[in-house]
Amino acid sequence: MDIVRDPLWNNIRLDPLALALVDTGAMQRLRYVRQLGLAHLVYPGATHTRFEHALGTHHLARLTLAILNERGDLRSLSVEEPAVIQAAALLHDIGHYPFAHALEEIGAPHHEDVGQTLITTGDVARLLSERVAPDAPQRVAALVRGQSDSPLQGLISGSLDLDKIEYLKRDALMCGVPYGQIDVDRLLNSLTVVRAEAKSERAVVGITEKGLSALESLLFAKYQMYRNVYWHHAVRSATAMYKRAVGEALGTGALDVRRLPRFTDEQLLQHLTEVAPSDLVTRLRERRLYKRAFECPAAELPQDAGEWIASDRARTAAAERVLAGELGLRADELLLDYPEKTQMLDLDLPVQLRSGEVTRLTSEGLPGVIHLPELSAQLYRSARWLRIFTARPVVFTKQRVIELLFA
Amino acid sequence: MDIVRDPLWNNIRLDPLALALVDTGAMQRLRYVRQLGLAHLVYPGATHTRFEHALGTHHLARLTLAILNERGDLRSLSVEEPAVIQAAALLHDIGHYPFAHALEEIGAPHHEDVGQTLITTGDVARLLSERVAPDAPQRVAALVRGQSDSPLQGLISGSLDLDKIEYLKRDALMCGVPYGQIDVDRLLNSLTVVRAEAKSERAVVGITEKGLSALESLLFAKYQMYRNVYWHHAVRSATAMYKRAVGEALGTGALDVRRLPRFTDEQLLQHLTEVAPSDLVTRLRERRLYKRAFECPAAELPQDAGEWIASDRARTAAAERVLAGELGLRADELLLDYPEKTQMLDLDLPVQLRSGEVTRLTSEGLPGVIHLPELSAQLYRSARWLRIFTARPVVFTKQRVIELLFA
Amino acid sequence: MDIVRDPLWNNIRLDPLALALVDTGAMQRLRYVRQLGLAHLVYPGATHTRFEHALGTHHLARLTLAILNERGDLRSLSVEEPAVIQAAALLHDIGHYPFAHALEEIGAPHHEDVGQTLITTGDVARLLSERVAPDAPQRVAALVRGQSDSPLQGLISGSLDLDKIEYLKRDALMCGVPYGQIDVDRLLNSLTVVRAEAKSERAVVGITEKGLSALESLLFAKYQMYRNVYWHHAVRSATAMYKRAVGEALGTGALDVRRLPRFTDEQLLQHLTEVAPSDLVTRLRERRLYKRAFECPAAELPQDAGEWIASDRARTAAAERVLAGELGLRADELLLDYPEKTQMLDLDLPVQLRSGEVTRLTSEGLPGVIHLPELSAQLYRSARWLRIFTARPVVFTKQRVIELLFA
Amino acid sequence: MDIVRDPLWNNIRLDPLALALVDTGAMQRLRYVRQLGLAHLVYPGATHTRFEHALGTHHLARLTLAILNERGDLRSLSVEEPAVIQAAALLHDIGHYPFAHALEEIGAPHHEDVGQTLITTGDVARLLSERVAPDAPQRVAALVRGQSDSPLQGLISGSLDLDKIEYLKRDALMCGVPYGQIDVDRLLNSLTVVRAEAKSERAVVGITEKGLSALESLLFAKYQMYRNVYWHHAVRSATAMYKRAVGEALGTGALDVRRLPRFTDEQLLQHLTEVAPSDLVTRLRERRLYKRAFECPAAELPQDAGEWIASDRARTAAAERVLAGELGLRADELLLDYPEKTQMLDLDLPVQLRSGEVTRLTSEGLPGVIHLPELSAQLYRSARWLRIFTARPVVFTKQRVIELLFA
Repeated sequence: MDIVRDPLWNNIRLDPLALALVDTGAMQRLRYVRQLGLAHLVYPGATHTRFEHALGTHHLARLTLAILNERGDLRSLSVEEPAVIQAAALLHDIGHYPFAHALEEIGAPHHEDVGQTLITTGDVARLLSERVAPDAPQRVAALVRGQSDSPLQGLISGSLDLDKIEYLKRDALMCGVPYGQIDVDRLLNSLTVVRAEAKSERAVVGITEKGLSALESLLFAKYQMYRNVYWHHAVRSATAMYKRAVGEALGTGALDVRRLPRFTDEQLLQHLTEVAPSDLVTRLRERRLYKRAFECPAAELPQDAGEWIASDRARTAAAERVLAGELGLRADELLLDYPEKTQMLDLDLPVQLRSGEVTRLTSEGLPGVIHLPELSAQLYRSARWLRIFTARPVVFTKQRVIELLFA
Repeated sequence: MDIVRDPLWNNIRLDPLALALVDTGAMQRLRYVRQLGLAHLVYPGATHTRFEHALGTHHLARLTLAILNERGDLRSLSVEEPAVIQAAALLHDIGHYPFAHALEEIGAPHHEDVGQTLITTGDVARLLSERVAPDAPQRVAALVRGQSDSPLQGLISGSLDLDKIEYLKRDALMCGVPYGQIDVDRLLNSLTVVRAEAKSERAVVGITEKGLSALESLLFAKYQMYRNVYWHHAVRSATAMYKRAVGEALGTGALDVRRLPRFTDEQLLQHLTEVAPSDLVTRLRERRLYKRAFECPAAELPQDAGEWIASDRARTAAAERVLAGELGLRADELLLDYPEKTQMLDLDLPVQLRSGEVTRLTSEGLPGVIHLPELSAQLYRSARWLRIFTARPVVFTKQRVIELLFA
Repeated sequence: MDIVRDPLWNNIRLDPLALALVDTGAMQRLRYVRQLGLAHLVYPGATHTRFEHALGTHHLARLTLAILNERGDLRSLSVEEPAVIQAAALLHDIGHYPFAHALEEIGAPHHEDVGQTLITTGDVARLLSERVAPDAPQRVAALVRGQSDSPLQGLISGSLDLDKIEYLKRDALMCGVPYGQIDVDRLLNSLTVVRAEAKSERAVVGITEKGLSALESLLFAKYQMYRNVYWHHAVRSATAMYKRAVGEALGTGALDVRRLPRFTDEQLLQHLTEVAPSDLVTRLRERRLYKRAFECPAAELPQDAGEWIASDRARTAAAERVLAGELGLRADELLLDYPEKTQMLDLDLPVQLRSGEVTRLTSEGLPGVIHLPELSAQLYRSARWLRIFTARPVVFTKQRVIELLFA
Repeated sequence: MDIVRDPLWNNIRLDPLALALVDTGAMQRLRYVRQLGLAHLVYPGATHTRFEHALGTHHLARLTLAILNERGDLRSLSVEEPAVIQAAALLHDIGHYPFAHALEEIGAPHHEDVGQTLITTGDVARLLSERVAPDAPQRVAALVRGQSDSPLQGLISGSLDLDKIEYLKRDALMCGVPYGQIDVDRLLNSLTVVRAEAKSERAVVGITEKGLSALESLLFAKYQMYRNVYWHHAVRSATAMYKRAVGEALGTGALDVRRLPRFTDEQLLQHLTEVAPSDLVTRLRERRLYKRAFECPAAELPQDAGEWIASDRARTAAAERVLAGELGLRADELLLDYPEKTQMLDLDLPVQLRSGEVTRLTSEGLPGVIHLPELSAQLYRSARWLRIFTARPVVFTKQRVIELLFA
């Protein structure tokens, strides 16, 4: 057992397999991919990387497996399942692009698909198949993609996965905001393996009733982090600038999408400077971000308006051209931004009541627990904003924006 | 300037007046009155006292006044107003009974009324009138009672008073629960003196729009503390036992209500043992608490049912007799408990928008901010429980309880 | 497994035996005995009790045993040894007098002797013998007294016992001083069972070379806590006043030494007020402490002078009378204080080097490690002060004090 | 006033001048220069940069100036002195090379000399001279170089400068080690302006007697950080590899020393890969560090041996060739390392005693304070190690190393 020190968890234990996986080139690259992309331009402390996050998620997996084991929840699983789960926790972000999630929003393959290749071929695959089981690479990759039928799938990807607990706490710590206070110990101790449905044979990870209050703490933390950090206007501006710069380079062929997962953050910026120089990249380097020309919370927009902005790149580009034209700006001087709704407060989880009965925590809520769907709807209305960023200071009226976008 | 160390705020500065006030007998008594009454029987760390809380509230007042002063918000106030406010912060709990708020629920005079006397007479009054202003004792007492017309009244008593920030953070720390994460620095920096209403001349403490997210953190913390600590079933059971024991002693005349504010926690228990020995007091000493015979969240009760339980002692006593009779228990073996609604999430506060405009954060909410009244209603439904505690293990059905109580 | 929340360790797990022991009257009394006696008069947050400390020590024992077990260090021990050790950790302070260690300095039996009776008779003994082993009460008592031949004796009482780690961290937290930063996780992970001496058959708890740096952190913390808290002049003054008051009451027979271990802090003060009223007790209640009339660090005293002050009560009393006479004070108006040397930095511990070799960390030090005896001597010279406290403001010259005391 | 969030200090206030300075290209580059160079290869959390450290040092300067001002210590200074000091705190590391201090050890100009140019020319100089005073650039540069005659020089560079407090705490936090516990609040409150010597007219920053205990906490923290982080064997190995790679590139002319201060960390590594590809750079990228072939604490070396290793590059290179030859290694496969002595525990500081008298805390120590020179000598003996790192696993005997190096 080796021990790695960590600002969040203090001491992280790594067994020989974890150490060997960490030493692969694919994992070492994560040392140079920041966890929060360009957020460090707004929260200077946010220089932490996918590497530390991967170690932390592995750490939580090890703790959780020990708890489940003590409770007898692992008895029906194969003997190598814990090693598979721990490997999946460590490797879950191995396919990440430079600057985090941003590029997936412009149509690059999802990082978990990229990860599939990195896990099932090369050094990682060799280590997993030699030291765990011949089919371990495939099992790990399935877990990372959320497509495993392991009862423990929920630990790696799901409503209450360990990834989420880790990044909320780490991001809050590194950004210096007091919003990551999750009752982790209580939460992990409340995880349990239960039947997926009342009469189902399928076993899945659920939570005991005693953990519901800790689960609320997770939801509050998540909401606060979205509102204050992930969806902070300047973070969104920098990210929109980056997406546009990369999108243009991909569009002209200057940049090859297949090379993307090999770059570190700094290497990609350097590469862009060389193959597709643009004002956007220069501005990011010098931290001269586009400013808000307009912003408006979801609560003030027409019901369900604008959901296409995050998903339909062509329609969004057309809208951006219209908006820019209206103000006499060049196309690359205006960016339209509306965060994807689906990232924030999903929750679909079996709950084991004190009586032993299992129910699901979804649309209808449970008495004695916050009515989560209502809460979630409330929170979106306040945290999610439509914004227009521009290179030069201009101002839109709300009426005009709504006419141009949603008429 | 003297410095006192503190587990929460680390270094608390006390000027000579504060030191002199702290040295009075009335303030020294607070060293022996626990902040959370009997909660230490459930959260062993909760041995902290009203004394530390008073120092901490004074500390926050000093910080807040410095911020308001830097911003020019104190210019129109009298020169001694800061000293008056700081004294009020220090003295605001001086009239507290042993074991915190419990006795007010059984009809003893409110602690702020008791405080009135302690502030306007004796050593405290002498210090205030000699060192601050002749009318300082009256001004401090008015602030503590929430009846001052000082623009800074809101710092001492109101929707967002410093008292609340202090106790939420301190109680969370001492109970060992991760629920006190309030963005204090941001919150204090957002306090400002504004007009009470659009056209009013009256100045009051409000909050700037930049502070709304920090205000949300306060509300989440408050909800979580009520749900997990203040309204924890075993804390409520111990408190109900204590209230009954004191209530009986007051009823028989064994205990004189006028002596109550002189006792420390331990002195009162000792006194009860001598003048009104009862099984309840013995059980508290030995931590043999009454257990839940029934519990049910507000969400499952008839709309607005049971609001009389916390306020109408006679009707509650009658209901308890009926319930006890039903199960063959003695009257002192059953306690009915339903926390007062009004303690949790009130909010009525002027907000200064970026535009400079002032609005109120109340019934209708603000766009871009959580809809607080809706949130508040949601939170009550999950945090507030009707409970029946009994000396011996018995069980009620929900149907029968509702018939007996609300038919 | 029940979970208790704690400000220091957050979640403390208690198994059914621990819960049953905690429920005994002898353990419940510890809820009302403050960990640091009268230090709360100087550090207001120091209201924490022996009860929380006992839970915390039990917690560390559970963690340490799990680590030792994982490493195979428990293999040669009896199956019930872990339960015995955990019980000893929980019960190690059960015989403590009101206000901590002070009374042992005036000749009352040592608290571990009092504990012997409480552990080997009554409820505690019954629980231990029924649930662990017939001889468990005697084995636990021997551990608490430091007289067990268990290889794990060192965890309960010794140079690096868990008690020390617990109280240094808890006391620092509650006093609000930043001096308790011990590398606990590393320290516990470095504990190991080794041969006591190179050729000895006897196994004892030692430390691996990897833990030496963490051990240094413990020593620095200990020095800083003595210098700033335990030997703070006002804490020493209050303690000296208390010792004198109790000493007088014992001397006149107003107080019976055999009753001492039954009292809580507040009960003893109340009892003294009734049976042996004195100015000293009133002053403690009102926090009017004796002030320093003289103080001088050990570094400036004649070599080895004054070691009798803490141990020879009669000689000290005579010296106090001489000093008081010199200044026209009554005997009860002057207190002479010089902390016992032996409490601070003892260290005698086997160290397992990387090579596997075991050596002892004592008088000669180890290369690559701070030379502890030299460091310790240095630290005493700066932290340990001879002081004279008086009821009225008077001043001694150093020369005169040395003449009167050491001539 | 703008507020920047920070993981260490939470909220850092920046006035308009600070904001403008931060926006210069020279300051923005520091976002991409890690505070601890290659330590992140050992402590993965250590991705923090000179940029955050600069903001934090500015923050401490602002706090300290407010304290000194409240105490009247700034009265005799020019009105713009506080702005000069705050600018110097912000800009003190502006000339830093990629990967921190390492390159200075191989003969590159000291970063404070590089900083001189960046402060006295270009955007920074323009901002300082326009907004503070015409001679502000020169005054700031003199402070950064430690050559100012400002009484506040000691805040920027000296035995107890704010830089040190900041980096010790930040580095400990980010490395995840519990060794940064400095009593900052007490320390800052103890800083004061005093006469440099008893009869001197010159005013300098000193410390009051009340702060000595906090000063001890700084020294303990510093020792522990050197022992566990800065002088950690793997950190030293990576740094030695980097120094060798850059040294070779400078030697062959592939790299121009004048360009060094323009690079970010990642740009320099990328540049080296292109202009001077070597196994050393590849190994750093892939984290395949040279291992210890020999190590030995200073305590076991001949008195004062080896002091030339850190300073005399030519002699060291010759010694390395001899050592490599002995083992049949290529010259670039062996690195000799012995940290510079002068970095650790210097202390030369005026202390203002309670009596008002000012003395110096240097060679002779003060009674009642740890004897610092003795302590310092002790600490070096345990923390400072001579090491030989090699590309392949070989082993030296101590006797042979000493013969080859010091005979």
